[in-house]
Formats: sequence, structure tokens, C-alpha cells
Amino acid sequence: MAQQVIGQQSIQLQTPVSILSGASIVGKKEGEGPLGDVFDMVGDDPMFGTNSWEEAESTLQKETAALAIAKAGLEKWQIRMIYAGDLLAQSVASSFGIADFQIPVYGLYGACSTMGEALSLGAMAVAGGYAEHVLSVTSSHFGSAEKEFRFPLSYGNQRPLSATWTVTGSGACVLGESGGNAQIVGLTTGKIVDYGLKDSQNMGACMAPAACDTIYQNFMDFNRMPEDYDRIVTGDLGEVGQRILWDLLMEKGYDIRKQHMDCGLEIYDGKTQDTHSGGSGCGCAASVFASYILPKVEKGEWKRVLFVPTGALLSKVSFNEGKSVPGIAHGVVLESIEKGAE
Amino acid sequence: MAQQVIGQQSIQLQTPVSILSGASIVGKKEGEGPLGDVFDMVGDDPMFGTNSWEEAESTLQKETAALAIAKAGLEKWQIRMIYAGDLLAQSVASSFGIADFQIPVYGLYGACSTMGEALSLGAMAVAGGYAEHVLSVTSSHFGSAEKEFRFPLSYGNQRPLSATWTVTGSGACVLGESGGNAQIVGLTTGKIVDYGLKDSQNMGACMAPAACDTIYQNFMDFNRMPEDYDRIVTGDLGEVGQRILWDLLMEKGYDIRKQHMDCGLEIYDGKTQDTHSGGSGCGCAASVFASYILPKVEKGEWKRVLFVPTGALLSKVSFNEGKSVPGIAHGVVLESIEKGAE
Repeated sequence: MAQQVIGQQSIQLQTPVSILSGASIVGKKEGEGPLGDVFDMVGDDPMFGTNSWEEAESTLQKETAALAIAKAGLEKWQIRMIYAGDLLAQSVASSFGIADFQIPVYGLYGACSTMGEALSLGAMAVAGGYAEHVLSVTSSHFGSAEKEFRFPLSYGNQRPLSATWTVTGSGACVLGESGGNAQIVGLTTGKIVDYGLKDSQNMGACMAPAACDTIYQNFMDFNRMPEDYDRIVTGDLGEVGQRILWDLLMEKGYDIRKQHMDCGLEIYDGKTQDTHSGGSGCGCAASVFASYILPKVEKGEWKRVLFVPTGALLSKVSFNEGKSVPGIAHGVVLESIEKGAE
Repeated sequence: MAQQVIGQQSIQLQTPVSILSGASIVGKKEGEGPLGDVFDMVGDDPMFGTNSWEEAESTLQKETAALAIAKAGLEKWQIRMIYAGDLLAQSVASSFGIADFQIPVYGLYGACSTMGEALSLGAMAVAGGYAEHVLSVTSSHFGSAEKEFRFPLSYGNQRPLSATWTVTGSGACVLGESGGNAQIVGLTTGKIVDYGLKDSQNMGACMAPAACDTIYQNFMDFNRMPEDYDRIVTGDLGEVGQRILWDLLMEKGYDIRKQHMDCGLEIYDGKTQDTHSGGSGCGCAASVFASYILPKVEKGEWKRVLFVPTGALLSKVSFNEGKSVPGIAHGVVLESIEKGAE
């Protein structure tokens, strides 16, 4: 088997993997934001017709996955494996979301970086000849996540300005051996990076060092500069995390301000939507990727993009026990098919 | 890229992946069980020198991972990626366990099936040319898991006879392109199987249908009979789950009683150790695999083994909301190197 590794922690796929479809479904608040028009569906009912926030998230994820499969022109049985994750304890949103599909599943946990992990492992499976088609999907729900990490919604606690707002949304992509107009050509697997920060209401600051680490390593491994990418897209650093990321990379000699974009800053209008530092959650990067980033690459408006969703690796228990909040970020290099053919 | 798929949900690796080492560390109770002599280390202190059950589990996982790397004769920097998971909410035992290694990480969640998932994805990475060496590791701890899923230990609740006892233990394997005396030659990725059972104190019954599904599919995909395996090893079905698995497979025309073994039944002496139905937890299958199953294959005593750890996909929240407990099982086909060369 020919080696596909490059540099210290990256993979250069010898056979690029096609992204055949991207689908997104979000909640009402996300539908009212700046990207409201690009999502495939906006659910007016935050319960998505169910009786609990967790069931709501499962339904959201299931519908998004089904939509991605349909948009790829495929049937469920043509998907060989699903790579799925969410934010909830024991990833139950995914387990109950996709069980009905009766497709083999690898459950993932990378906090809000999970879509990067799901696309990475999915691409490795397709490029390795282990599957003709795979589905990568993640989700989050404001109701289920607030309850999991902070307080019950009815408690109505105040939120500091550095806090982010968990996106109610799901994004799914079907990856395949050929077809489509965008492809995954490289990966940079993230390390766990811990600067010792402990504020779960400032996750941008906790995750920025991990984003810096992965982006820097991507530049090193592929021997690239920021301008080699049309966009460098983080997941949910928000305003605070974005500034820290810029500063950290500047210290290493890289100015990414022209190329950088953060899904958490795109999805809400912070001024009018009271979302403080921005959006977050597994569904943030995933829904913005599927509905906004991917189409730009498919159309060739952006020839090459580095997508780097970031995750904060905390739990209620680790927080209550006074542990720090380590971060992780997984990098996925996308190219428009035209670019790949050059 | 040549296709490596076989049947409906299996992979036949064109390049088998070597298992270079297996390491296990367990707690005192496990050390007093029938397998006490085969584990690499037994910790007398259930806190493993830390201040919380969660830190104890992280330390346990870290030490086991380090031991596996050392036993493979490698240094940390030679491990390209880690595939890791545990049972805790947001997989925090893994996040805090292996952060210090500064090795790229893919976080996994498959409940007690996670070692099967970690070995599967790790083998796919090595066989695909994405890494020369990877580490697969999982852990569980009686103290951290009881608190997560049931009650604080100090509550001293009674346990029904169908309940299993969470193993304090961790198992880790280093996979590589060549070397070693055992290899991974095939995989059967599990589907989520839900028979609607809701009793979290009878997880064997919840997981048995998933084990049946994966084992049956493995027979179909590879066109094999039970006697084509020297052992078929499930993770932690325990006494109740084992009987259900036998019955379910018998209904499909397969009698696996001669080949079947369950890690949860091997690790404790149910008669004297008060462990009811058997052992369970991510660390059960992983530690028994690394210390007992793998050496048998390495020595050629067992030529071909199907290792099928089983997971129960519940959380405290899903249980309290009255949801069922779906199961999943990932199959890994191992062969002794002699067998592979025949």
C-alpha cells in the first residue's frame, strides 16, 4: 500500500474523494440569521414534532441525513457506512437518530470538531477502497446542549458576552469515489491542545490554540501559506476565539485575517440576535459547511478551502471537578473539481 | 483504489494489518479474578494516585497506552494517530488521558464496543497507507461509570442478578504495517440494533441482538461457518446476554456454543466475586483482548478469531426519558501470522 502521509500529521489522498451532496436543516433562530436562505430546511417547531430536546435533535439529524442521501441521488442501502456524532453524553442524539437507517455506523466524539472528524474518517474510508459511498453527519440542538452543559432552559441564566449560542442544526454530506463538483484532497488530524483555560462560557478561547495548532501544522505539512487557500474556515471560535487565533498565528508569522472565516460568526447576526460571541455546537460547522462553504467550492468561487472545525473537550463532570477545557481541531482540505483537474 | 469490500457490511483487507503489541492494566478486583496473572499490571489503588474516579480512569488509560507503545518497541512520536474512547459523557477519560502524548487523535464512542471500533478504524488507517503505526485504546472504571450511569458508589444500591459489573481496566494495541505474530484481516462494521428493551440493569439482553446481527453478517459476508473460527469472542454480554445470543443465532441456523467466549464471563469468577452476570465496560473487552485473546492468536493456539465487542447505546438522559437501549457490535477478524502465510 503506497504511503499517503505527508509531514508530521497530515494525509494527502492519492485518490481525492468526491463530495456528492451536502444537506442542512436548522432551527427557527438559525433560519432568521444571515444564512437563513441557504439552508435546505428551517424547522419552525423547536421540538421537531417530538416530546424531548434529545428526540428533537435525533429527528433533525435523521432528516438531514436522509436529505443528503436523496440529494446525492442514492438510496439508503447504497451508503456503506455512516460516521456520526453529536454533543450529548454518550452521543445519544446520533444513536437514536440514525438507528432506523440500518446502515453500519461508526460513532464519533470530537465535540464541535466532529464534522471535521466525520469527513476525515469518511474520506479515508472511500479513498482506501472500504466503501463506495459513506455519509458524514453531525448535529446539535440548543435545548439538548444547554441542558447537558449548563442549565435547564427554564432556569433562564444569564450568559457572559464571551459565551456562544448552541446552534440547532444538522449538516450531512455524502462522500463517494467520483462525481460531484468538490473533493477532499487532504487531511490534518488534530492533537488535543490544552492551555489550561477553565471557562466553559468562553469556549472560543479554549479552542483557539487547537485551531492554531492544526492550521499551522497544515501549512507546514503541505508547505503552504495562508494565500494558498481561498478560505480558512473554523467551526465555532466566535469573536473572542477568532481574535485569539489570529494573534496566535501572527506570533508564528502567519496572517490569516484575509482568508479566515468562522462558521459561528456567519450563522447569526450578533448585533440583533443576542447570540453574544457567535454560534457553536456540532451542528454549527456542519450546517454552515453543507449549505454555504461547500456550494462555494462546488461552483468554483473558492478553489481551495481549509475547513477546520474546532471542539472543546469538556463535560459537565470535568467542568464541575475543576478540570481545564482542552481543544481539538481537525483540518479538511477541499478543492473544486476544476482546481483538482488543473 | 481497489475495492476491499466484501458482502453487505464487511471489509476484507488486501493488506493485513499487524498487531505489534497489546497492553492491559486493570484494578484490584480484576487482578483477583481468573485472568489476574495475564494482565500486564494490576493497580492496588482504585484512584490510581489521583483525586477523582475520572482522573483515575485517565491515568489508567494513559499508562496502558504508554505500555503498549513501549511493548511495540516504539517511541510516542512514531505513533501517527490514536483511536480512543471510553464510556464517560463526552469521552472525557480519553481526552484527559492521552492529551499529553501530543499525538493526533480521533475520539470514538461505541459504548463497550469501542475497542472493536478503535481496532477497525485503526486497521483501516494502516492498511490504507495513512499511518505506519496507530494506537487503539479504550478504558472504563467502576467508580466513574457507576456514577455516570447509575448511582454514586456511596449510595450502595442493590444490583439485580442480570446486571454486570463495570471493569476497571484499559487495553491498548499498537497496529502497524508489518511485524508481530497476529494480524487483522477483516472487519464487519456493526449496525445499531434495537429490540426495544429498556432495562439498563440487563445490558446483556440489550446488546445480544446486535452481537447476533454482526456475527451472522460476518458469516454471510465471508461465507463462513462457526467452525471456521477457533473462537468467537464477544465483549460483555455476560450470562444473560450469552444465552440470548446463542438462542438468536440458533434460530438462524448457527450453533456457536463450541466457539463462543465472552470477555465479561472470563474476567471475573461470578461465584466468588459477586459480579452477577459478568464484567462490562470499554475496558472489559479491551483488557481481555490485549492480555488473553491476542497472546493466544500470537502463539498460534488459535489460528483465526472473530472478536466482537458489544456496546449498549444508552445515556443517563436517554434512560431517564424512557428510551430503549439499542446495541451495536463491531467485528474484527484476527489471524495468527502463520495462518495468514498458509
